Amino acid sequence: MTEARNDGAESDRRRSRRVDRADHVRADPEALSALMGDRALLLRMDCCDPWVSEDGRLDWGTLDDAPAGAELVFLGLDGDRGCFAAVPRMLEGGDARGKAWLQAGQLSQQDFATFSAARSLASWHASHRFCARCGSMTVQGKGGWQRDCTDDACATSHFPRTDPVVIMTIEHVTPDGERLVLLGRGLGWPEGRYSALAGFVEPGETIEQAVQRETLEEAGLKVHSVRYRSSQAWPFPSQLMIGCHAMTDHSTLAVDRTELDDAFWATRAELFAALEDLPGKTFLPPPRHAIANSLLRDWLDRPAG
Amino acid sequence: MTEARNDGAESDRRRSRRVDRADHVRADPEALSALMGDRALLLRMDCCDPWVSEDGRLDWGTLDDAPAGAELVFLGLDGDRGCFAAVPRMLEGGDARGKAWLQAGQLSQQDFATFSAARSLASWHASHRFCARCGSMTVQGKGGWQRDCTDDACATSHFPRTDPVVIMTIEHVTPDGERLVLLGRGLGWPEGRYSALAGFVEPGETIEQAVQRETLEEAGLKVHSVRYRSSQAWPFPSQLMIGCHAMTDHSTLAVDRTELDDAFWATRAELFAALEDLPGKTFLPPPRHAIANSLLRDWLDRPAG
Repeated sequence: MTEARNDGAESDRRRSRRVDRADHVRADPEALSALMGDRALLLRMDCCDPWVSEDGRLDWGTLDDAPAGAELVFLGLDGDRGCFAAVPRMLEGGDARGKAWLQAGQLSQQDFATFSAARSLASWHASHRFCARCGSMTVQGKGGWQRDCTDDACATSHFPRTDPVVIMTIEHVTPDGERLVLLGRGLGWPEGRYSALAGFVEPGETIEQAVQRETLEEAGLKVHSVRYRSSQAWPFPSQLMIGCHAMTDHSTLAVDRTELDDAFWATRAELFAALEDLPGKTFLPPPRHAIANSLLRDWLDRPAG
Repeated sequence: MTEARNDGAESDRRRSRRVDRADHVRADPEALSALMGDRALLLRMDCCDPWVSEDGRLDWGTLDDAPAGAELVFLGLDGDRGCFAAVPRMLEGGDARGKAWLQAGQLSQQDFATFSAARSLASWHASHRFCARCGSMTVQGKGGWQRDCTDDACATSHFPRTDPVVIMTIEHVTPDGERLVLLGRGLGWPEGRYSALAGFVEPGETIEQAVQRETLEEAGLKVHSVRYRSSQAWPFPSQLMIGCHAMTDHSTLAVDRTELDDAFWATRAELFAALEDLPGKTFLPPPRHAIANSLLRDWLDRPAG
């Protein structure tokens, strides 16, 4: 390989790519196989965690970089080139997320979407090698968007999992008109870190009911006027974060210490100081790439209600 | 047992109940066990389908009505009484939903929530008796809100699954100002039935991105201005339906016939006739208890955009 080719390959590796999911390819084994040639791109990962360079870019290699015999997941198309990720043989240390969680914050929105899909899919495959229904082995199908039970009598198909989570700014207006927002900290969080309350949507409930239930369970508050704000994929391992806002007429907290380490009402000034890292800030806000950060900024920007 | 007691038991069976999920009880084996006495209520089911009476009520028995050895799921509290559902030994015929799907439409909103939680949980337990990670048996934990792998080296905990689905009214305004809404019909649907387009949210995408991708895949349309409208639990087997609205500047459809049987642009008059079952209606709308029905009614009631 000449040096010129090396340079080309190097710039090809770190380019930000708009990966089109191209779902019609998934069910077409011939098309999939044709995309797995020399021009195919492999998202380089450490276990389930895509590599992120110091300047905040993903790293793309070729299929030769995949471990021998690894299952490949079809992430989509970059133009006419197939983009793939390799499934690790097993999950290391459960689903550790320390470094990847921080690194993901450096990515562009486009690369964060690719990072998220790859990480969620790889960790799903690595933890779903068996059929939950009958215990038999499963094999990958549809380019990695499905796993199929190998037992003929069962033959259940399984699909990647995405868990909806509500995360919400809860607002209280004091009798003298001051607007407060509820912040809490989870068990074991870094010292001083506070964020918006959150919890999994349970079977049988709506988004709005989940917001009401979680706020009542964790902080002892009845809320009303639940409004959807925005959403985000969060691949640790595979959440759909559903950002909401709600109002409460009450300010007395009854914190469930099995769920939260602490909770308090922040003033607008306190929140602003924390988000802008001003001198005198009293707590650490959620990181910039988490939806909690943008929900809290959004709350500062909006009128009451 | 006297006749008077029988009458009391009868009215107790068909009462609509506000079941509080009482999640603090789930992790408290003593409290759970205390709730499993004579006063405990069992939601009567046929496989995973709660019974619905002709007048649209759920049917509550006692724990004696559960099959011997059946796993019990704690649905929550009705006052101080524990409400439970029994997990069927296996799922019959995959996840057939014919009768239950129609019957659920007769329930009050409160009972529909109970029906949904019970149906989703029972079908999840019946299809997750094995650990997807290692293939070992799993056992129920936390009152049925968890399953734990019995292999000491694996010991993975598994949680009930809820799959987020976007469902959306897509609007196009013609050059002469007429407002149209996109309707499609799935493969194998009853003759004449049309509804809003829908699809699963995939790992790594937001609600808004899922709406854009699904509409492009199924109908060949680029959409913008995606707005959240409302949500609904849909226990067939366990979806969180996320209702949205979006606009498109295009009207030419390219229907993916592997996903949809047909799609067309309906006028407001056509939709109104179908929803109100007027003479001259040209199609069957989604059933009243499906979120698609309320999204389409909502669209008729709102100004453009």
